[in-house]
Amino acid sequence: MASSASVIDSVVNLCKRRGLVYQCGEIYGGTRSAWDYGPLGVELKDNIKKQWWRTFVTGREDVVGLDSSIILPRAVWEASGHVETFTDPLVESLHTHKRYRADHLIEAYVAKHGREPANGLADINDPVTGQPGAWTEPQLFSGLMKTYLGPVDDKEGLHYLRPETAQGIFVNYKNVMTTARRKPPFGIGQIGKAFRNEITPGNFIFRTREFEQMEIEFFTKPDEADEWFKRWVEDCWDWFVDLGIDPENMRRFDVPDDERAHYSAGTIDFEYKFGFSGNPWGELMGVANRTDYDLTQHQTHSGEDLQYRDQASGEKYVPYVIEPSFGLTRSLMAFLIDAYTEDEAPNSKGGVDTRTVLKLDRRLAPFKAAVLPLSRNADLSPKARDLAAQLRKSWNVDFDDAQAIGRRYRRHDEIGTPFCITVDFDTLEDQAVTIRERDTMEQERVAIDQVEGYLAQRLIGC
Amino acid sequence: MASSASVIDSVVNLCKRRGLVYQCGEIYGGTRSAWDYGPLGVELKDNIKKQWWRTFVTGREDVVGLDSSIILPRAVWEASGHVETFTDPLVESLHTHKRYRADHLIEAYVAKHGREPANGLADINDPVTGQPGAWTEPQLFSGLMKTYLGPVDDKEGLHYLRPETAQGIFVNYKNVMTTARRKPPFGIGQIGKAFRNEITPGNFIFRTREFEQMEIEFFTKPDEADEWFKRWVEDCWDWFVDLGIDPENMRRFDVPDDERAHYSAGTIDFEYKFGFSGNPWGELMGVANRTDYDLTQHQTHSGEDLQYRDQASGEKYVPYVIEPSFGLTRSLMAFLIDAYTEDEAPNSKGGVDTRTVLKLDRRLAPFKAAVLPLSRNADLSPKARDLAAQLRKSWNVDFDDAQAIGRRYRRHDEIGTPFCITVDFDTLEDQAVTIRERDTMEQERVAIDQVEGYLAQRLIGC
Repeated sequence: MASSASVIDSVVNLCKRRGLVYQCGEIYGGTRSAWDYGPLGVELKDNIKKQWWRTFVTGREDVVGLDSSIILPRAVWEASGHVETFTDPLVESLHTHKRYRADHLIEAYVAKHGREPANGLADINDPVTGQPGAWTEPQLFSGLMKTYLGPVDDKEGLHYLRPETAQGIFVNYKNVMTTARRKPPFGIGQIGKAFRNEITPGNFIFRTREFEQMEIEFFTKPDEADEWFKRWVEDCWDWFVDLGIDPENMRRFDVPDDERAHYSAGTIDFEYKFGFSGNPWGELMGVANRTDYDLTQHQTHSGEDLQYRDQASGEKYVPYVIEPSFGLTRSLMAFLIDAYTEDEAPNSKGGVDTRTVLKLDRRLAPFKAAVLPLSRNADLSPKARDLAAQLRKSWNVDFDDAQAIGRRYRRHDEIGTPFCITVDFDTLEDQAVTIRERDTMEQERVAIDQVEGYLAQRLIGC
Repeated sequence: MASSASVIDSVVNLCKRRGLVYQCGEIYGGTRSAWDYGPLGVELKDNIKKQWWRTFVTGREDVVGLDSSIILPRAVWEASGHVETFTDPLVESLHTHKRYRADHLIEAYVAKHGREPANGLADINDPVTGQPGAWTEPQLFSGLMKTYLGPVDDKEGLHYLRPETAQGIFVNYKNVMTTARRKPPFGIGQIGKAFRNEITPGNFIFRTREFEQMEIEFFTKPDEADEWFKRWVEDCWDWFVDLGIDPENMRRFDVPDDERAHYSAGTIDFEYKFGFSGNPWGELMGVANRTDYDLTQHQTHSGEDLQYRDQASGEKYVPYVIEPSFGLTRSLMAFLIDAYTEDEAPNSKGGVDTRTVLKLDRRLAPFKAAVLPLSRNADLSPKARDLAAQLRKSWNVDFDDAQAIGRRYRRHDEIGTPFCITVDFDTLEDQAVTIRERDTMEQERVAIDQVEGYLAQRLIGC
C-alpha cells in the first residue's frame, strides 16, 4: 500500500484526470476558494446526500427535512452571535505582507515540533521566505460574507450568506413543529451550501470558502439532551462505517472548553486521517450540544415565544438542541481516500499490472454499471447501446466502446464502477453477456433478459 | 372548479398551512427576497429535481452532469457580458421615494388597460398613493449580487453570486468534454441556486432574489443548432406534460428580437397560467439559442482555445449552444397549481363534503404513502408503526394516528399522498390492511406481506 501522503496526491490527481473535481474558474487562473464537481463528482456527491437523507431524514420517524435560504437578514446573525463572535485572529507577515490565521500558524508549529512555541508567534518563521517571523498584532477578522439586497448598498440592504445551515433551521423551528405536527424529541435535517470567508483556504476540497453541509438540529427536553448527544454520536459513527469508512482511519476528539464554538456546551468531533502533510488528521464532522442557546437568542431578539408547552405535563421549556453537523464535501474526500486502492490485476501478456481501484460502497459509486461492446462493431455496439439505454431507466450506466477491453476495465475500476457488462460475439448466439465484479474481478455469464434482475439484487439501497 | 385567481390563493394558503413553503426569516418580520421549503416542500422540490436529472442527465447518453460554484470571479461575468448588460431600468416615485422597475410599471399598465401608455411613465399613477405619477429618469441598476472574498473589500476581492448557473458550465466545458470523453453534440446539465437583485420580488415564489434553476447547455455543430433547438423545445414540453401539467395551461412564446437576452439569437419561453392578477401567464422556462456567443467571449477573455476539432473531418469550430433553462421553484409552483383540485367526497353523516386534493403525479408526491392505525390503540398503533418503518426503507412514508380516520384521509389528500394504508381491528385477525387510492378513493384489502410489492408496482419511477 502507498503511504497516506501519496494516497492524497493520487486521489487529487484522479479527481482532476477523471473529472470528479475541477478547480473553480480554471480557465481564468483558478481559485482555491471553491471547487466544481464534474460529471462523476456530482453523482458521487448526490449519492452521499441521498444516503444521508435516507438514513437521517426520511428513514427516521423523528426527523423531517427543510431547505432554507442561503441569504438571511442581518438580524438573524446578530441574534445567533455570529456578527460579534464569528471571527478569526488575522496576522500579516511584515516580510511578505501576506495574511495568515494566527491559530493556523501555531497549529502548524505544533504539528511539526510536537510542542507549543514558547514565545507564541515570535517563534514562527515566515512560511514563504523561511526568515524568522515578524508579525503584526492579531486583528479579529469576520468570517461572514456579506452582500446587499435592493438598489443601495446601505445598512438596510446588508445581508449575510449563511456560514452554517443551522440558523435557517432555528428560525423555522416553530413553523416546522406546528405544520409537521411534531414535538420534542424531534429533529430537522438540511443539506445545503454555506460560506465562510476563510483567510487561507487549502488542502484541496477540505477548506474552501464555499462548501456544503448536512446538518440536523435535534430538539429535546433539557434533561434528555445528554442522552441524545451520546446516541447521535453513535448513529453518525455508524453511518460512516456502514458506507465503507475503515474505523481505523476515524477517531473522536472531545473538544476542550476553550476550543469550542461560542454556542456549545460539549462537542465531539470526528476526525479522519486524510493524510495531510504535518497533521494527517482533519475534522470530518462534529456533534455539538448547543443547549438552548440559539432558540433563547432568537426568542429574545425576535420577541417570538419559542418555548414548547408539553400538553400532558403542562411543562414549558425552550428545547435543548443536539447538532450533528457533517461536512458534505469533506465526507466526499474521506470516502474517496478510504476507497482508493492499488492492487494487482492480470494483464494481456500473462503478467500482472498494478491496478487502481476505487472500492467505493456500491451505493456511492457514480456509475453502477458500464456496458462495453467487446469491439466497435455494427452488431455488438447497437446491442450494447440498447442494453445501456434499458438499464439507464434504473441507474446511472455508462456506455463505453473506445479502446481495448482491458483498458476500459481499468478506467471503470479507478472510478469505482461495481459492474462491467461485456457484449461479445457469443452474445449474438447465446443472448447472454459477461458481468465482471470490480473488487474480485470475477466474471459471470448472465442472460441479457436477466441482467436487470441481477443488478437489482446487488444494488439494493442504491 | 374555482377560478384561477382563487386557486393561486388557495395554493399559497395550503403551502403555509401544511409546511410546504415558509416566508424566509418570518420571526424577524419576513422578506419577499426568498422562501424556505418545509418538510413537504423540500420533498416535492427534490422529487422534481430527481425526475429532471433522470430524464435529461443520467437518462440520456448525450448529457452529463455538473455542480459548479455559486461564487465566480469577476472576470467570468465581465466575459459573459453580465457586468455590462445585466441591468434593469429603475425609477423612483417622487411621491413615496419607493423604487420600481420601469418595464414592470409599463407591463402592469398594459395588463390593466390592454394598451401601451401613450406618454410612457408619465401616464402611470403611483402604485401606493394612486396620485398621477411623478418619476425620476430611469437609471440602469445591476441585477448582480456582489460579495468580497479575502480580508479586504477591494477590487481584487470583488466576486459575484451567479445570476444563472449557465456560466459555470461554459467555463468548465472544455474540462468536461475532455475528462468525460465527449464530443458535440453533447450537453452538460446542472441544478443549483442563482441570485438576482430583483427590485420588486413578488408573486409568492415566482420572483425571488434567491431561486433555483435547472439548466442544460447543449453543444452542437453550428449548422445543427436550429435542429437541436426544435428538438429541445419538444423534449421540455413533453417533460412537463408527462409529469402532469395540463397542456391547456401552458403556451409557447416566441420572444421577439428586442426582448431577448443579449446572448440569444432565438428564444422560446414556456408560459404557465399561474393565475396572477393582471396577466395570469408567467414565464416557466425558456429554450434559447445562445450561438457561440458565450464560448467565444470566454475564449477571448481567458486566452484558452475553446474550439472543438473534429478528428474525422479535421474541421475546427466553436460549438453553438442550445440552452433549455428551467426555473425549478417556478416549476414547483406550476405543479402545485395544476394539481390543486376541489371535488366531493362522502362524509361520515352520509352526505358529501368538499374535498381538497393535490392530484400530483405519484413521482412528485412528497409522501408516497401514509400508514394509519384506525384508532390509537395498544395493538393497532405498534403494528402500523412497524409497517411504516418497513416501507420507509424504500419511500418517504408518514405515520399518522391523530384524530378521526376521515380527517386523516383529508389531510393526506390535500398534500397529494397517493396511498393511505389503514390498519384496523380486522388486521389483527386477517393480517391484511385497507389501501385507499387518493384520486378514486377506491379501497382494496391487501395482505400486509404484499403491501411492499403492491406499492412497488404502482410507484415505478419514484
